[in-house]
Amino acid sequence: MASAQLDQLKLAMAATNALFTNEVVLNRNFGALDDVYTADARILPPGAPMISGREAIKKFWTDLVQAANAKSAVLSSVEVIPAGDGVVEIGRATLAFVDSPDEMQAKYVVYWRQEAGRWKWDVDIWNPNS
Amino acid sequence: MASAQLDQLKLAMAATNALFTNEVVLNRNFGALDDVYTADARILPPGAPMISGREAIKKFWTDLVQAANAKSAVLSSVEVIPAGDGVVEIGRATLAFVDSPDEMQAKYVVYWRQEAGRWKWDVDIWNPNS
Repeated sequence: MASAQLDQLKLAMAATNALFTNEVVLNRNFGALDDVYTADARILPPGAPMISGREAIKKFWTDLVQAANAKSAVLSSVEVIPAGDGVVEIGRATLAFVDSPDEMQAKYVVYWRQEAGRWKWDVDIWNPNS
Repeated sequence: MASAQLDQLKLAMAATNALFTNEVVLNRNFGALDDVYTADARILPPGAPMISGREAIKKFWTDLVQAANAKSAVLSSVEVIPAGDGVVEIGRATLAFVDSPDEMQAKYVVYWRQEAGRWKWDVDIWNPNS
């Protein structure tokens, strides 16, 4: 992939990640998850079996963000690996909470696909660093 | 990808997975990890930061399999998604231990690449189901 094309891809991915951090976590606008996950996305959260489909994923994040009283999330790409029609991303996440000064450090792998012209998370797995 | 080609790919992946379950976990032959991971593979284990490079990964598994006194591992593919030169696999793992009757259920995402004609794990992340 040409360098300019990769830059373009990274910008598109950053826009989707910003939807998650700003709309979903910060503003608790869970409808924004329609533009974050593909319709048949799968998430693999620690402590639970795999969850399939955007509607079930929306319920998962709605419950978790509220239960944890999340304050903010910061996502940063560590590697962006173009893979056919998709992209494999390795990243770091930092989560902060309203009720605690402790931040949580996590890492993730997301397999991205395009849906209706937008880059979205198709497979999303993460775990905590400690 | 044609169906016969996909079947061939799945057989090659199963052979690599069998190296991990039979050689690494069962026989504690950690040298077999040379044929499981690419030279610059990355693993993202729960409870620790990302680890890069096969030598560091070999140390990780040597320490963990011995410390946990692992008895057996069963890996099963849930999805195999061809992605350019690589493959994204979603899978389930069941781990058993010498000192405990409790099994551990986990799930993983592996990004596979070919190295020297063999399909290997290039990015490997997992977490427990409970």
